[in-house]
Amino acid sequence: MEIGFIGLGKMGMNMVTRLRRDDHRVLVFDRAQGLIAEAEGTGAAGSSSLQDLVSKLVKPRAVWMMVPSGAPTEETVQALADLLEPGDVIIDGGNTNFHDDVRRAAALKPKGIHYIDAGTSGGIWGLQIGYCLMIGGEETLVQRLAPVFTTLAPQDGWAHVGGHGAGHYVKMVHNGIEYSIMQGYAEGFELMSKSDYHLDLPRIADLWMHGSVVRSWLLELGATALKNDPTLAGLKGYVQDSGEGRWMLMEAMDKDVPVPTLSAALFTRFRSRQEESFSEKMLAALRQAFGGHKVKSST
Amino acid sequence: MEIGFIGLGKMGMNMVTRLRRDDHRVLVFDRAQGLIAEAEGTGAAGSSSLQDLVSKLVKPRAVWMMVPSGAPTEETVQALADLLEPGDVIIDGGNTNFHDDVRRAAALKPKGIHYIDAGTSGGIWGLQIGYCLMIGGEETLVQRLAPVFTTLAPQDGWAHVGGHGAGHYVKMVHNGIEYSIMQGYAEGFELMSKSDYHLDLPRIADLWMHGSVVRSWLLELGATALKNDPTLAGLKGYVQDSGEGRWMLMEAMDKDVPVPTLSAALFTRFRSRQEESFSEKMLAALRQAFGGHKVKSST
Repeated sequence: MEIGFIGLGKMGMNMVTRLRRDDHRVLVFDRAQGLIAEAEGTGAAGSSSLQDLVSKLVKPRAVWMMVPSGAPTEETVQALADLLEPGDVIIDGGNTNFHDDVRRAAALKPKGIHYIDAGTSGGIWGLQIGYCLMIGGEETLVQRLAPVFTTLAPQDGWAHVGGHGAGHYVKMVHNGIEYSIMQGYAEGFELMSKSDYHLDLPRIADLWMHGSVVRSWLLELGATALKNDPTLAGLKGYVQDSGEGRWMLMEAMDKDVPVPTLSAALFTRFRSRQEESFSEKMLAALRQAFGGHKVKSST
Repeated sequence: MEIGFIGLGKMGMNMVTRLRRDDHRVLVFDRAQGLIAEAEGTGAAGSSSLQDLVSKLVKPRAVWMMVPSGAPTEETVQALADLLEPGDVIIDGGNTNFHDDVRRAAALKPKGIHYIDAGTSGGIWGLQIGYCLMIGGEETLVQRLAPVFTTLAPQDGWAHVGGHGAGHYVKMVHNGIEYSIMQGYAEGFELMSKSDYHLDLPRIADLWMHGSVVRSWLLELGATALKNDPTLAGLKGYVQDSGEGRWMLMEAMDKDVPVPTLSAALFTRFRSRQEESFSEKMLAALRQAFGGHKVKSST
């Protein structure tokens, strides 16, 4: 089928490549001219602006957005809302909070413009393996777009999970689980690195991929990372987050669900970004105050 | 090669079956006569006592123990220590604390009896897939026993990870990681079960197995469990532990390594076994005391 594609970052470009392999007609736009030229190498057609992209698409149009979450996504939706016509559909494949999906779908509805949220997992490996897609929105629109989902996903790798926002909701929980899994491995490997046994971490990570209960795709990635740098000497332990963990924590508070490992994993990331911890200084101060324990001066 | 095998529980029996498939000569003993008869069905030879088992083995003997951890394992090692001779080797494939391995190996050394610890992962699925084996002990003994490890493990599924106790140490960390991973999934699926979207949990668990970042063997097991009982109505949320999680927490304290998700996962299991929580009553009492908040009476 035909699809417009906005946002040619690492994931977007790979998705366009996958779509072109299956001979979908893909019209692309990105603010970076060089990325448009690169996408044209896959057989996609470039466009000079959002207006140009929309004008070249056959009605009813489908436009997939793969742009950074937050303001860039919001601005793109606003711009498309003024350009598209009744019957057209916007698909947000980025990292959006499900509450924003609900709000946007409602705002577009009076204009007759449809909105689909597509939680997309697979990272830079998706080109090869396919992207796991969690789709939220109206059933008729999901059916219309099925050929695109089928191309982007591996076999059995996409599903319509519910109404507006459900796709990003499921993706949010997916990522929250990812935090806990990563943190679990991280704690285990740190402990082994401190063990009195001189353990060969890359060997153990690889070993666990063969028949153990903790084998997983994340472990496979960890095994490769440890093989390339067994002491992780080349890395700083500075860990960003792209929002889903904190959104999941907010949703957990909204629903009174205890999520202790998510919390621990999220707060570990926050601590990893602090040069100094005021909280730890406060602990040291209190410990000195009541017990006269020695403290370290900051100078 | 030839091996004695003590303990024909679920895992032990499957391991004997796997050993017999590769035509190893296996002599078995278990306190339950019926299990010996069952093992004989695989072509293993039964024995009437530990003495009988040891007398039938060719020197240097190898005896694999797959008995419950703690006292049963300790008693079996003691009994074997009196029956075996210099050059023989005991392999503990059970769930043993690595400190006990170190102690036992040292106690057996003056008698010339060798000791190997074999952390064994794979559960009831090992018969089909093979068991991931983490081996601790002397290199020469590990080499002698290699044919047995090769049979029990899948391809590339066993490794000599270090000296006495190293096998169970790595298995302990493996299981601690398992706690965090399980807890991460558990929190995510509970939140989805409480979501305002009516999410199809078995469908989502299955979907995530296809190209998502959180695909893993534990998720595969979870998907099957949810398919069989989507609301888990048939289960009580009572979660045992077999020790490795708390041993890992103790080792983490010994090495000053923070393990927040392990702690959260372990304490969640403890809470799951309490009918009533004294701690939660205490919270309610304090909340009433300072703020006059309503409490629920226990009667």
